[in-house]
Amino acid sequence: VKFPKPLTKLIESLERLPGIGPKTAQRLAFYLLHFPQENLENFANALVGLKTGTKLCSNCKNVAESEVCSVCDDDTRNKREILVVTSPLDAFVIEKTGYKGVYHVLHGVIDPLNNIGPEELFIGELLNRVEEFSAEVSFEVIDGSHNLEIILATSSSMEGESTALYISKMLRNAGFGKDVVKITRIARGLPVGGDIEYADPTTLEKALEGRSDYS
Amino acid sequence: VKFPKPLTKLIESLERLPGIGPKTAQRLAFYLLHFPQENLENFANALVGLKTGTKLCSNCKNVAESEVCSVCDDDTRNKREILVVTSPLDAFVIEKTGYKGVYHVLHGVIDPLNNIGPEELFIGELLNRVEEFSAEVSFEVIDGSHNLEIILATSSSMEGESTALYISKMLRNAGFGKDVVKITRIARGLPVGGDIEYADPTTLEKALEGRSDYS
Repeated sequence: VKFPKPLTKLIESLERLPGIGPKTAQRLAFYLLHFPQENLENFANALVGLKTGTKLCSNCKNVAESEVCSVCDDDTRNKREILVVTSPLDAFVIEKTGYKGVYHVLHGVIDPLNNIGPEELFIGELLNRVEEFSAEVSFEVIDGSHNLEIILATSSSMEGESTALYISKMLRNAGFGKDVVKITRIARGLPVGGDIEYADPTTLEKALEGRSDYS
Repeated sequence: VKFPKPLTKLIESLERLPGIGPKTAQRLAFYLLHFPQENLENFANALVGLKTGTKLCSNCKNVAESEVCSVCDDDTRNKREILVVTSPLDAFVIEKTGYKGVYHVLHGVIDPLNNIGPEELFIGELLNRVEEFSAEVSFEVIDGSHNLEIILATSSSMEGESTALYISKMLRNAGFGKDVVKITRIARGLPVGGDIEYADPTTLEKALEGRSDYS
């Protein structure tokens, strides 16, 4: 079946999106035929402006409208808590929880099968931030309190876990001990509302490992 | 959660697509952040060019690159079989079956609940085609053979059925009798590969009604 060229072109672009196969792309393209030209142009402008209108925050590498993102620029945020996430969307999702620290966005996970090593991610930049922080603030360890907390919030997949492990080792190897930089990992366990009978064994194992005092 | 404005704009455009909710739109927008600018621009051009680069065939109203679509322009196609479909995509899907007649695209179904009456669709244009055809060709009824066949291939939904009924009545009321215009409806029945135990009663009823001689 040969569609008119303008349709074929649009179908090809739509097919590049994740989760959109050839059939869905066709359906969407034909649906878009009924859009007013103005809406199509707004859509087109939004695509072109997506990257030209945004930059990565020079500090945390999150997507931002200015040189420094609104979180890093906010004096009320706790700069001593850096939450490490894989993608900007993850950071925006965590914002909904009311988290009051700052972020560091890696823009990916270490994934040797897809040729993504640590140098492809903003991992070196995280080390720089910790080093800068330690240069500015002379760590004073008072009754076991830590001066900086790195919260590793990469996903619970194999790649996410090994990325977390890599970052943790890198920071320790760079000479930041437990007394100055606390490294934590978000809890893995039963999702809220989740039934034990439907949970996989690995999740249950993690849920047991991470059990806490109850009463 | 406030995303940077360029992201919000794109999310709003993506949300307008059928089957794409807020969450999927967010995911797609953040995914598009990793596209090279060139791909985004190609995508944008495809959107803008979708309607400016296509027109509706003056004859069958299908989407075409020129004034007359490639099907209507093809002398090997049987102009005495007009298959009526709801959308251009339906016509392209039927092309895969090897159908050798021509099409008429309604661009919708009669749907009073959504304020779509016959005058919103290309139904009058179908009548014009039949009238023009009858003016050009003087119908000669030889041993019961029909001169023109209208195949109603609207979907099997309530709206599709009533649109088919409307067109059939309209043609008969315009004075085209069974001897000159044969009106047929595509078969409704068990899909190929379908199990009887999973079929709904209405489909089974239609499958029984439409039974044919077997041996």
